Amino acid sequence: MLTVEVALQKVLTHATKLAPRTHPLEAALGLLLAEPIASDIDSPPHDKALVDGYAIQAADLSTGQAEFEILEEVTAGDVPRLTVTPGTTTRIMTGAPLPAGADAVVMIEYSELRDETHLLLVDASAKPNQNIMRRATSLAKGTTLLHPGALLRPIEIGVLAEVGRSQILATPRPRVACLATGNELVETSETPPPGKIRNSNGPMLAALVADANATPVALGIAKDEREHLTECIRKGLESDVLILSGGVSAGVLDLVPSVLTELGVKEVFHKVQLKPGKPLWFGVWENEDRRVLVFGLPGNPVSTLVCFHLFVRPALDYLAGRKSSWQTCRAQLTAPFQQRGDRPTFHPARMHDLGLGPMVETVPWRGSGDLAGLLAADSLALFPAGEESFSPGDEIDVILLKA
Amino acid sequence: MLTVEVALQKVLTHATKLAPRTHPLEAALGLLLAEPIASDIDSPPHDKALVDGYAIQAADLSTGQAEFEILEEVTAGDVPRLTVTPGTTTRIMTGAPLPAGADAVVMIEYSELRDETHLLLVDASAKPNQNIMRRATSLAKGTTLLHPGALLRPIEIGVLAEVGRSQILATPRPRVACLATGNELVETSETPPPGKIRNSNGPMLAALVADANATPVALGIAKDEREHLTECIRKGLESDVLILSGGVSAGVLDLVPSVLTELGVKEVFHKVQLKPGKPLWFGVWENEDRRVLVFGLPGNPVSTLVCFHLFVRPALDYLAGRKSSWQTCRAQLTAPFQQRGDRPTFHPARMHDLGLGPMVETVPWRGSGDLAGLLAADSLALFPAGEESFSPGDEIDVILLKA
Repeated sequence: MLTVEVALQKVLTHATKLAPRTHPLEAALGLLLAEPIASDIDSPPHDKALVDGYAIQAADLSTGQAEFEILEEVTAGDVPRLTVTPGTTTRIMTGAPLPAGADAVVMIEYSELRDETHLLLVDASAKPNQNIMRRATSLAKGTTLLHPGALLRPIEIGVLAEVGRSQILATPRPRVACLATGNELVETSETPPPGKIRNSNGPMLAALVADANATPVALGIAKDEREHLTECIRKGLESDVLILSGGVSAGVLDLVPSVLTELGVKEVFHKVQLKPGKPLWFGVWENEDRRVLVFGLPGNPVSTLVCFHLFVRPALDYLAGRKSSWQTCRAQLTAPFQQRGDRPTFHPARMHDLGLGPMVETVPWRGSGDLAGLLAADSLALFPAGEESFSPGDEIDVILLKA
Repeated sequence: MLTVEVALQKVLTHATKLAPRTHPLEAALGLLLAEPIASDIDSPPHDKALVDGYAIQAADLSTGQAEFEILEEVTAGDVPRLTVTPGTTTRIMTGAPLPAGADAVVMIEYSELRDETHLLLVDASAKPNQNIMRRATSLAKGTTLLHPGALLRPIEIGVLAEVGRSQILATPRPRVACLATGNELVETSETPPPGKIRNSNGPMLAALVADANATPVALGIAKDEREHLTECIRKGLESDVLILSGGVSAGVLDLVPSVLTELGVKEVFHKVQLKPGKPLWFGVWENEDRRVLVFGLPGNPVSTLVCFHLFVRPALDYLAGRKSSWQTCRAQLTAPFQQRGDRPTFHPARMHDLGLGPMVETVPWRGSGDLAGLLAADSLALFPAGEESFSPGDEIDVILLKA
């Protein structure tokens, strides 16, 4: 049986970055850019005022005080018509173009109107270039601003808008079909009759996918029945990734692997040395155009969650062009733990930081069917295979569940 | 003029948690629950098998090996009909209800079929309760599972589905109208004529809002013209928060404060002691039903960004019911910095961690109009008001820009 590390390696070997697509700017937040971006403008496009005030020749205020004749008023969006000469000034608003002749702007707070066309300026520290941003200071036309691979944060979105990119080429979010399988499942809105339970994996998987910055495609519940399962899986293969839960153990109704094979999905591995999550199935479907990663996760909700974090999430990062890694840390156990068994255990746990470095507490948990037990958890504590008694203070590896 | 701390306090005093609304479960990820949730079922609803195998009486395998007669087969979703007695077994699949009489499940791997109805089981360690999850172990009907205020992560979404909550009451995401003002602005898709620039604040604000887990409502560009501005602001007051950028300095066309007042928005403060961002305006509009927070941010994009992080984002957290705080840390300067001026400066900066604790480097930045200069930044370095020379190694406060 494969170890977790080897299985993950096999998954990532089959994951390739999705082909870039054009996205409208308003849908680009959080994506990775797939083209270089150059500025099509100088920014600012003209020498501009950084404050509301008066454009002058700084030399006129060498004594700290002087009277000026007002030539005109320029607001942002206007173009000045007149040239500022010694003894004259143009009233100017923040962002407006500096008139020819002027080399400084004095803030409006330092002005005193004499009459409609004359005023007194008092600014002991007036210097050339004061309160002016020169043309092209922020951006020069033709300069490359962003490179492929850049993460599009709000700042990048603002800059892209500034240089006129209402559409950009970026690696898309992976589309991930989520399909829960099993005759025992009913919808959330139903009251389960005897022997049945509600489908908790479907909604949880969709949320895990969204949390991983990918787009869930909820396919509902597939019955353990060849024809219906085939139809649902076919729909799932239209996405970039298909996640199934249930139907991958050794049971008589565990049709999933056989139907997948029938539909041309090539098995890469089945079963991994871990607890919970051993029955994990992974395969790949491809034609000339596309490749789909197919994960058959065990049906117990905690196994589903653990396998998602260990294998699916890193694959989604890869498809989206992000570096892939588990968010791990080392932490000290708060209480003893008895590990036994031939598989490494990923036990639900909770991190604490009381100022003495990271600590981790295993939370009470009644096995892979106990999803409610996970409500108190924010991480998975890793105990290697074997018989071993852990003591408080022992350092172990912890995988954080948070995005 | 107010200090940043006092201004923020005034903002938060006026921010109140939004009234809870009903959300479909598939749209609830990341929200805060606003009702207690109790289980409407036992989970599991019956004693269930945790593996595929054979349900037996454990005592039958006390010697580690025995032959059994197969009574029937129960798959998940079925209900067993027959009682397991000494020497008999029921074939059982993962998740299926345990038949009466049985107290252990032996994994299918330990079985050897004799003929269609008989088999040999070999499991030296068979014990009562093995591979069984007892009814209500994970959830007992009526137990309160989640309390108001709980953050809905994928685990919570799964548990809510399990207990039948396809709709839940939660504090909604704030709806935030974003309106850029100014005659100098043209749309991203246009080529700016002389004197004009593209609207970068609008798209950036929408992205900042989305990044803060709120819902942006893009209102485009308002001209510096009373009637049009009035109409746009009226639309903005339909959201929970209205953010304007531009039009709040002392300039002749800075109509924003006067139009806001005319529409019944009560000014709380105008101008804050900070750089960049001094002209910040904040007010509140309310009627019997609702209260709208109105932020007039300065039009320079870096001022807009800084004011958003310092004042708007904490307010959005408050409305959404989350504890509000800046993400700050202490870090050592990597290079000298000369601070001067009567206002604290929030300078674009970049964090480094080379294993010697957090370090911060101010990035080259040409003033509040230089958004492109921010591309290299991931934080704001805070330098208090006054004339002071900072040296490499000096510890300062840093605000992280990341969500």
